[in-house]
Amino acid sequence: MSEQTASAKLTHETFGEDPVTAVGFMADDARVAARSLARATRGRKDAALLHIADRIQAQSAAIIEANKRDLQRGEHNGTSSALLDRLKLDQTRIGGLADALRELAALPDPVGSVVRGQTLANGLRMSQVRVPMGVVGAIYEARPNVTVDITGIALKSGNAVLLRGGSAALESNRALVGIIRDALADQKLPVDIVQSIDDHGRDGATALMGARGKVDVLIPRGGHGLIQSVVQNASVPVIETGEGNVHVFVDASAPQKMAVDVVVNAKTHRNSTCNTAETLLLHKDAAAGPAVLEALTKAGVQLHVDDRAAKMLPGGVQAPAATDEDWGTEYLDAHLAVKVVDSLQEAVAHIERWTTRHTEAIVTNDLANAEEFIASVDAAAVMVNASTRFTDGGQLGLGAEIGISTQKMHARGPMGLEELTTTKWIVRGDGHIRK
Amino acid sequence: MSEQTASAKLTHETFGEDPVTAVGFMADDARVAARSLARATRGRKDAALLHIADRIQAQSAAIIEANKRDLQRGEHNGTSSALLDRLKLDQTRIGGLADALRELAALPDPVGSVVRGQTLANGLRMSQVRVPMGVVGAIYEARPNVTVDITGIALKSGNAVLLRGGSAALESNRALVGIIRDALADQKLPVDIVQSIDDHGRDGATALMGARGKVDVLIPRGGHGLIQSVVQNASVPVIETGEGNVHVFVDASAPQKMAVDVVVNAKTHRNSTCNTAETLLLHKDAAAGPAVLEALTKAGVQLHVDDRAAKMLPGGVQAPAATDEDWGTEYLDAHLAVKVVDSLQEAVAHIERWTTRHTEAIVTNDLANAEEFIASVDAAAVMVNASTRFTDGGQLGLGAEIGISTQKMHARGPMGLEELTTTKWIVRGDGHIRK
Repeated sequence: MSEQTASAKLTHETFGEDPVTAVGFMADDARVAARSLARATRGRKDAALLHIADRIQAQSAAIIEANKRDLQRGEHNGTSSALLDRLKLDQTRIGGLADALRELAALPDPVGSVVRGQTLANGLRMSQVRVPMGVVGAIYEARPNVTVDITGIALKSGNAVLLRGGSAALESNRALVGIIRDALADQKLPVDIVQSIDDHGRDGATALMGARGKVDVLIPRGGHGLIQSVVQNASVPVIETGEGNVHVFVDASAPQKMAVDVVVNAKTHRNSTCNTAETLLLHKDAAAGPAVLEALTKAGVQLHVDDRAAKMLPGGVQAPAATDEDWGTEYLDAHLAVKVVDSLQEAVAHIERWTTRHTEAIVTNDLANAEEFIASVDAAAVMVNASTRFTDGGQLGLGAEIGISTQKMHARGPMGLEELTTTKWIVRGDGHIRK
Repeated sequence: MSEQTASAKLTHETFGEDPVTAVGFMADDARVAARSLARATRGRKDAALLHIADRIQAQSAAIIEANKRDLQRGEHNGTSSALLDRLKLDQTRIGGLADALRELAALPDPVGSVVRGQTLANGLRMSQVRVPMGVVGAIYEARPNVTVDITGIALKSGNAVLLRGGSAALESNRALVGIIRDALADQKLPVDIVQSIDDHGRDGATALMGARGKVDVLIPRGGHGLIQSVVQNASVPVIETGEGNVHVFVDASAPQKMAVDVVVNAKTHRNSTCNTAETLLLHKDAAAGPAVLEALTKAGVQLHVDDRAAKMLPGGVQAPAATDEDWGTEYLDAHLAVKVVDSLQEAVAHIERWTTRHTEAIVTNDLANAEEFIASVDAAAVMVNASTRFTDGGQLGLGAEIGISTQKMHARGPMGLEELTTTKWIVRGDGHIRK
């Protein structure tokens, strides 16, 4: 199929239909494509990933052109420079997207792996085998790199995907989805493995959220508002991702250098990510306290402090008083709330009051306190003497990551390829019946 | 604590509060209880299970008294005899409930088991460990045995539970919950591990469905209407259970005895369960066809047949013509829809059109067809030459079962103790930071 033919038809022919009907048809097409993809060998899927990577790089000029139109529209609409930066695609970033697809090709295929199995007393042979979910929906905001990331992970795990990328990245996403569908056609795979519902606007997103039975799982990626809107409104099962009101507790016994290293890294390594520290809890007897605050200040972090922390500030440093709003805020910026606590128990209670159950850390040299913290804190990840920035699929050795789940069902913490699969029980007998 | 004191206070003191506030407070109490239970050893949990079992048997007279009041009210309200039978508790059934708790005590504890772990290249030690979900909600209908089942499974897996058992079983459930809470108090465990929200009626159930963040997972158990109502209305993550429009496909090569045994067992072993066959698909060349229909008829099954199946009926047997309603119906009774198909592909297409993705079976002696069926059918369980009745936690060696999930997220098929846990990533370093 020529690339013009495939990319001209980005989705099911739905012109004139209402969004619910249109998205329903697209989900049906996705289901048919998914059934075919579920039976594709790892070899075919990896070949497709590598080919998509090549096509994206070969057509980077067209992608950058489309992206420029999104950027111009964004500037015209007064979009912030931070958001424009996330929207932007250039040669280097496109190369990074292609390389990520190549890395995916090198990862093991989760499909077909046997989770457990045995021969039962009656001779029945049973095994529980990983199979793709089927049809995955993704709702995200103005980040065209997510289009490629999610497509790659879905393809590798054998799933079809319906993408809602948001109006701000409309042209970039249209270019990317067109290229991906062309590449799938080249590889004789169904192009409806990847479809964009962006043409159906907000009503399309609403239809996607309501398509229970047609869409197997919905993954929202973005800010608090987007995620809560999806969680509250979707009847399709949702995996909640990404909000991280992350705490670091510096215990009385924390070695000073370790406390400084871990806290500064957790806050400043990249302050816009969900695994970045947002509140520091200092034990009142922590000798490391003043050094930690001084290092943070030198690193350009604006502290928001309670009364006792104010007294530990380096001379001449100003810091506003922390309020409940500070304890509850994910700054995603060079700000950090600081509270002094009397005990590990007070730290744990503060965390339980404000946590988003993403990542919580302790710096300590006291074994009993380390174990107590691990057992007491209810979060996807607990760090002992390590930066909170390690809550990341790549860092934890999972390979690719489609987001960090902050819910308890299905997936918790970094979600890799396995988390986009479900299982099937296969039971083989010789005419076995129940007595 | 005397049993009077504990059972008198079944739940948080919520008199006069609106159901949303009341259920919120109860969920908070459950969270505190769950945190304590999460750290209880297996020994303590098993001792509590055994003690609850003993108390339930010792107080069976009081339970049966309370149950009689529910039965009388049901009779007065014209409840069907089938429903009354499910509602009924007698000495034998109570003994069965107690024994199920004792069996739970003998099962391994899922909490604390390490799902995966490794030391990373940078020296970080990471492990993913099973932990309880926290607070589990259950909404079910007029089956007091579910009160004990769910409580036992929740307790063993370290979770607190909020129970909504339905007005028809109000007195039975109140008696059971009171005894269970007394037994927990005897064992010095928090009584709020188990709370009933029945006093708050339908509004309480609605509040439970909306308590996202306070309740970690909601399990509906009951008929189609109940489950769909919960799925559509809950913002708390739901595990959908139980609906089974189960098919058996008898392939051309199916040995006659095996086909007769498997189909008759799948339909008649117990016809009110979700893993009971509801539609038989006969390959047009299946020599076993007429014998299967004759055996079903002899077993008292009312067949609903398409044109070609009608011609295979034993002489003198009447069967109504099957309609789309038959293909879509979970009879849960001694009825079976029968369709003759031209091919395995037609059988698979029929299943895809009507399946609830619970259990699907093939009877065949053709290896390629068996593999094709396994790969093509999208269901929690696929049976080859075995009765569909084996989709059951006990039969598949999982021990206890809290329901059979027909969704793809988190749990699929029979849900045992593991499915009521989530995981926590524990990462231990020596001051590790991200470069």
